[in-house]
Amino acid sequence: MGAKAKIEKFWTGDPIDSLRVNPGFSLADVDTTSTPGFDGKKKHSVEALRKGASIFRHQQEMFFAGSQDGDERKVLLVLQAMDTSGKGGIVRHVVGAADPQGIDHLAFKAPTKAELSHDFLWRIRKQLPGAGRIGVFDRSHYEDVLITRVRELFPLETIDERYDEINAFEQELTDDGTTVIKVMLHISSDEQKSRLAERLDRPDKYWKYNPGDVDERLHWPAYQEAYQVALERTSTTAAPWFVIPADHKWYARLAVQHLLIDALTRMELSWPEADYDIKTEKARLRAS
Amino acid sequence: MGAKAKIEKFWTGDPIDSLRVNPGFSLADVDTTSTPGFDGKKKHSVEALRKGASIFRHQQEMFFAGSQDGDERKVLLVLQAMDTSGKGGIVRHVVGAADPQGIDHLAFKAPTKAELSHDFLWRIRKQLPGAGRIGVFDRSHYEDVLITRVRELFPLETIDERYDEINAFEQELTDDGTTVIKVMLHISSDEQKSRLAERLDRPDKYWKYNPGDVDERLHWPAYQEAYQVALERTSTTAAPWFVIPADHKWYARLAVQHLLIDALTRMELSWPEADYDIKTEKARLRAS
Repeated sequence: MGAKAKIEKFWTGDPIDSLRVNPGFSLADVDTTSTPGFDGKKKHSVEALRKGASIFRHQQEMFFAGSQDGDERKVLLVLQAMDTSGKGGIVRHVVGAADPQGIDHLAFKAPTKAELSHDFLWRIRKQLPGAGRIGVFDRSHYEDVLITRVRELFPLETIDERYDEINAFEQELTDDGTTVIKVMLHISSDEQKSRLAERLDRPDKYWKYNPGDVDERLHWPAYQEAYQVALERTSTTAAPWFVIPADHKWYARLAVQHLLIDALTRMELSWPEADYDIKTEKARLRAS
Repeated sequence: MGAKAKIEKFWTGDPIDSLRVNPGFSLADVDTTSTPGFDGKKKHSVEALRKGASIFRHQQEMFFAGSQDGDERKVLLVLQAMDTSGKGGIVRHVVGAADPQGIDHLAFKAPTKAELSHDFLWRIRKQLPGAGRIGVFDRSHYEDVLITRVRELFPLETIDERYDEINAFEQELTDDGTTVIKVMLHISSDEQKSRLAERLDRPDKYWKYNPGDVDERLHWPAYQEAYQVALERTSTTAAPWFVIPADHKWYARLAVQHLLIDALTRMELSWPEADYDIKTEKARLRAS
């Protein structure tokens, strides 16, 4: 693919294999400052991200166009991370390059009482992307095995059952033509500390800080463990996890952009053929 | 305002008054090739749009931030136009500059049977933006007085009642803190013809063409009349219409961007104060 070739220029190697969570994966062994597959620095990332954005935008339009012609495939990007890891930046700088008309962005908050009265996947199912659309989940059904596990909001047996339920759910999505891209942005505890400190230093960032952020932070090791278990148990062939070192925001953005471009490239998209007679239509138009 | 001053540089005058639909307005008298308030050419518009995007992005973030602090105001941008007028380009190039997390984009298609069994505003109400969000309606409740009138889908008396119902509805939105920005992108019949012809000439545009587009085109005068009536009867103090000459796509984009920036500027936004004690939180964070 031409698009593929253009991307390779900016990468020393395809980072996908080294980012994918395979058997034996250990979250603790990931260097959060590393930049797998990308040899450049921040200054080199700007141009790479810009070029990637143009490729992504083009592919996303073709993907959307295909759905108008009966292609029923969908993409779902799941973003999970500790606070301040840069999910918002991914949405702005990576997803934001695409046409808003083809993006379904959803930020999942703590479930409401009504939502809690249903199965945990109930509210997730309602927000799944339709054909030709890229759904972006900022937090997701994985909160139901992360914060719930750390805070002991449900019995461990209930949580334990959910990993299999999630795998079955994601297999169903895949069978239905959804490419599920699951991303954990991974920062160090020290990096989080300095990002939270910045929010307390800048009046234009005060609103992003919440005293509850420090409460959660005190559970850092328990969260890392909950992530480790979730990654182990739900990184499947149908819907693998990618853990992206995110101390360098610019790298995380490049890597997620790369995952999106890779997924769309593998779809082998093309512009839909006309489903009308072009000559006839030209004549009708001329006469109108 | 600083932002306001920066915008003025690119404009010879504020275009808002000349774009607003006031009593005595006549759609037929609008020159679709004109560029009210902007003296430059296409090449000058690029930099103006880029600078405007940065102002818009900044204001939109502040608007969103305010909602986390209890500000309940909302913005609703309604886009109406004949086919090929460039609604999609507005969404991509103007709205697309903002953070996708703060945008609710909705494209209204022909109503389903279920939707038709309700009042025409039922499906619209369900999609209204929440606090701190900018809703973007690509087509809207105005279709219920446009295509329905031209195609005689409802008795004229029913449609006639709807203008008042729309005014009451929009007054209610305004009372509830929603700034309603209603935009009609206005192109000439010849411009539409050449844009449709382009879609029939370019394989990457075939998917955007639909034989029904020519069917609708044959009703051009009736649509212009339906627009004239809608504009006359629903351009209110609470929710005025703006008719934007759109034969130059670049001008239409600048003008809609200007309307959005103007609306946000008039809100006199500022970053929310911290609702926690900064010193205490810094100490807690240090200790964490």
